Amino acid sequence: GGYREKVVCRIDEEVDQKLDALFIIDHVVNGFFAIDIVLTFFVAYIDRRTYLLIDDHKKIAIRYLSTWFIFDVCSTAPLQTLSLLFTDHNGGLGFKALNMLRLWRLRRVSSLFARLEKDIHFNYFWTRCTKLVAVTLFAVHYAGCFYYLIADKYPDPTKTWIGAVNPNFKSQGVWKRYIASLYWSIVTLTTTGYGDLHAENTIEMLFDIFYMLFNLGLTSYIIGNMTNLVVHWTSRTRNFRDTV
Amino acid sequence: GGYREKVVCRIDEEVDQKLDALFIIDHVVNGFFAIDIVLTFFVAYIDRRTYLLIDDHKKIAIRYLSTWFIFDVCSTAPLQTLSLLFTDHNGGLGFKALNMLRLWRLRRVSSLFARLEKDIHFNYFWTRCTKLVAVTLFAVHYAGCFYYLIADKYPDPTKTWIGAVNPNFKSQGVWKRYIASLYWSIVTLTTTGYGDLHAENTIEMLFDIFYMLFNLGLTSYIIGNMTNLVVHWTSRTRNFRDTV
Amino acid sequence: GGYREKVVCRIDEEVDQKLDALFIIDHVVNGFFAIDIVLTFFVAYIDRRTYLLIDDHKKIAIRYLSTWFIFDVCSTAPLQTLSLLFTDHNGGLGFKALNMLRLWRLRRVSSLFARLEKDIHFNYFWTRCTKLVAVTLFAVHYAGCFYYLIADKYPDPTKTWIGAVNPNFKSQGVWKRYIASLYWSIVTLTTTGYGDLHAENTIEMLFDIFYMLFNLGLTSYIIGNMTNLVVHWTSRTRNFRDTV
Amino acid sequence: GGYREKVVCRIDEEVDQKLDALFIIDHVVNGFFAIDIVLTFFVAYIDRRTYLLIDDHKKIAIRYLSTWFIFDVCSTAPLQTLSLLFTDHNGGLGFKALNMLRLWRLRRVSSLFARLEKDIHFNYFWTRCTKLVAVTLFAVHYAGCFYYLIADKYPDPTKTWIGAVNPNFKSQGVWKRYIASLYWSIVTLTTTGYGDLHAENTIEMLFDIFYMLFNLGLTSYIIGNMTNLVVHWTSRTRNFRDTV
Ligand SMILES: [K+]
Ligand SMILES: [K+]
Repeated sequence: GGYREKVVCRIDEEVDQKLDALFIIDHVVNGFFAIDIVLTFFVAYIDRRTYLLIDDHKKIAIRYLSTWFIFDVCSTAPLQTLSLLFTDHNGGLGFKALNMLRLWRLRRVSSLFARLEKDIHFNYFWTRCTKLVAVTLFAVHYAGCFYYLIADKYPDPTKTWIGAVNPNFKSQGVWKRYIASLYWSIVTLTTTGYGDLHAENTIEMLFDIFYMLFNLGLTSYIIGNMTNLVVHWTSRTRNFRDTV
Repeated sequence: GGYREKVVCRIDEEVDQKLDALFIIDHVVNGFFAIDIVLTFFVAYIDRRTYLLIDDHKKIAIRYLSTWFIFDVCSTAPLQTLSLLFTDHNGGLGFKALNMLRLWRLRRVSSLFARLEKDIHFNYFWTRCTKLVAVTLFAVHYAGCFYYLIADKYPDPTKTWIGAVNPNFKSQGVWKRYIASLYWSIVTLTTTGYGDLHAENTIEMLFDIFYMLFNLGLTSYIIGNMTNLVVHWTSRTRNFRDTV
Repeated sequence: GGYREKVVCRIDEEVDQKLDALFIIDHVVNGFFAIDIVLTFFVAYIDRRTYLLIDDHKKIAIRYLSTWFIFDVCSTAPLQTLSLLFTDHNGGLGFKALNMLRLWRLRRVSSLFARLEKDIHFNYFWTRCTKLVAVTLFAVHYAGCFYYLIADKYPDPTKTWIGAVNPNFKSQGVWKRYIASLYWSIVTLTTTGYGDLHAENTIEMLFDIFYMLFNLGLTSYIIGNMTNLVVHWTSRTRNFRDTV
Repeated sequence: GGYREKVVCRIDEEVDQKLDALFIIDHVVNGFFAIDIVLTFFVAYIDRRTYLLIDDHKKIAIRYLSTWFIFDVCSTAPLQTLSLLFTDHNGGLGFKALNMLRLWRLRRVSSLFARLEKDIHFNYFWTRCTKLVAVTLFAVHYAGCFYYLIADKYPDPTKTWIGAVNPNFKSQGVWKRYIASLYWSIVTLTTTGYGDLHAENTIEMLFDIFYMLFNLGLTSYIIGNMTNLVVHWTSRTRNFRDTV
């Protein structure tokens, strides 16, 4: 159905047996987000006015319930699966709104990393590296999937980035198409740009423009972080040399 | 007429009804520049010799009127619109000189950012980010438009960057051509360089050479600023960890 | 035989006379690693608990023999050459395991550089530069060789990155093919990406994806180190200016 | 003759009238180098042992005459022009050795910048920027000319980077070919790599490999310097904000 299509980027409209695995992965991921909700009730916070660390469970619960709790539950709960039980229309507007809620998870992952970076039990630099790798892989996966979707929906398949090279791409296996999408996505992200797969129509150009502008920011951010790490490591080694 | 052609990069010689919207946008932008002129009379300045903050309105007015006031008014006032009322020749030399005056606005935007960066009421880093994004988008837009103009004026359309791919590009819609120009511009700026659209004749190569050299400076500047931000943010987070 | 094929990236299955030179180079390199093993018995170390410098030969020997000594010997000793004397099957599993042991040398080269960087007798920055150049050349050489191997083993030669441009590439000289592989490798590493040689099938795309992700990290690391050097040099020159 | 061919990268074997202009430019450049030799007799230096500033003209002269003076004169004097008067063979070995001496000027320009950077009368950062721009333009010009020479000397013109696109390139004007060379050179330096002009044979690939490795270092160096500048400027602006 439509719900599971989203998860696998709608690439696999015909490969039904693989969807069960994806269905399970999705529920495992949901499980982690559910654990995160429970844990939030036990994590102390710093009051913005008094600058005191609040570890009273009641106050933490009140603060959380009155702020992001509802969004966190809606973005975690398998509402779509529930809605499938009662309705049989998959492409409705309400359904799409529920899917958009899943993007709320991004905020939660982002705030998780912000919390880990401030936590002295974790190595600061490894947390940062993990975050950068996660952001990069997330961007690569979603850009690849979205770019494939544009080609899939375009009326003339030969005038798409993948169809210009392989006209009957829709009959290929799902993994071949997924790797081709990832390949284009990474070729663009790393600014290698071989040009063997390139935008053929205006919609693809438009998406590519936004992706490249985003990449300009992302690669600068990666280089900036790497420079920071190198400067930090070097100063440590130099201090070691000075003490010896 | 010629005046409005400039605004839309002369792409839309045939799409007249869209020009009214651009005409309005142009006047709104002019309005902001006019407000900036008025505000300049109320902004205190630091005397270069005595290092004192001068907030006497009379002195501010005298200083402004004796320096950039004339240029600021000429680059803001819709002189071209006025000139259209009295003359009917659009491509004259005087007209082109008036158009060049509009570039003076760049100096004003540049000095606005310099002022904002020194103003403690504004967050320093967000001002800087806004400036970088503005410079990037401005460069992308103008390079794309100028590159299209070169192809448009070239005697043999099939020997141009856009004509080699799409020989009858002149009969396409204005948005299609604008997005193709932007696409080439961003592919070059981000050094992705797919190569599907590339210089075909010597004039295009020459322009491309200058644009790529400029981009080398711009991307270095973006990376430098990003590194600066990352180092600043990291030192703040580390200080927080040390105090906890 | 199979052993020497590995050394020259299996490119030279027919050029037997060149293999003798490679055989000698391999033994010279092995000689350096053997010297390193001997030297390790004379290099003092810092005890992790007491932070004292241990230069008692007996303790150094005990520590080394009980930790990495076995691996170091296995990765250095020409075990493969020995095994060739007793067996005549080259492609066996045991043989491949022995070849994997050679990768252990990477750890040794890495720890050599870590030691040199901490040694005050060596200039810190030149050690670092040498390390970066060594890592870059190593990555370029291995990626090129591996990418060639993928094309060489692919069933349809015309559907490979090198076969698409030059269908009868297998009959070319070994140096021509090696330089083509290096060329592709550096074009990808530096993110130039001309696109004249690009992935044609899914296996090549998959390898290219991992290589480009690795390159993103490597180029960021190179830029980070260069920035560190420039900042260091500049501060020295500025200090000189201030004292004059 | 052969001497003037070198100056214009041997591109213009048929355009004789343009050579007179180049001949004059060459002599003007020589003039500046001659002035530099004279000035060196008046520039004080710091003694490496006593760390004292030596401004005794006699000692400066003795030191200069006993070190680089001979090389500086040979690399500046129009020896080639003199040799043309006495001999009529242009391609001889002695002639080529004389041409190599001209590369000695690089050391002089390099030491000039080192001197300027330490001179407190000059702005440190502008000196550095000028140096970077000079190095970039020099690399672009020489790489472009050398790459053209490779194509020009290759036996099969259709198997060269420029001949593959334009088979009868040798009959084109000198400026067209020079701009195509510069275009390729900058496309590679900035890692844009459109791929419209790319290596076709092994010799071109080999040169391209070295040029790309050099570019990796150069672009890192440019980014490192830019980051240094941005950090320096930002800290100045922030200090200004803190004092206000
Ligand atoms: K590129
Ligand atoms: K490219």
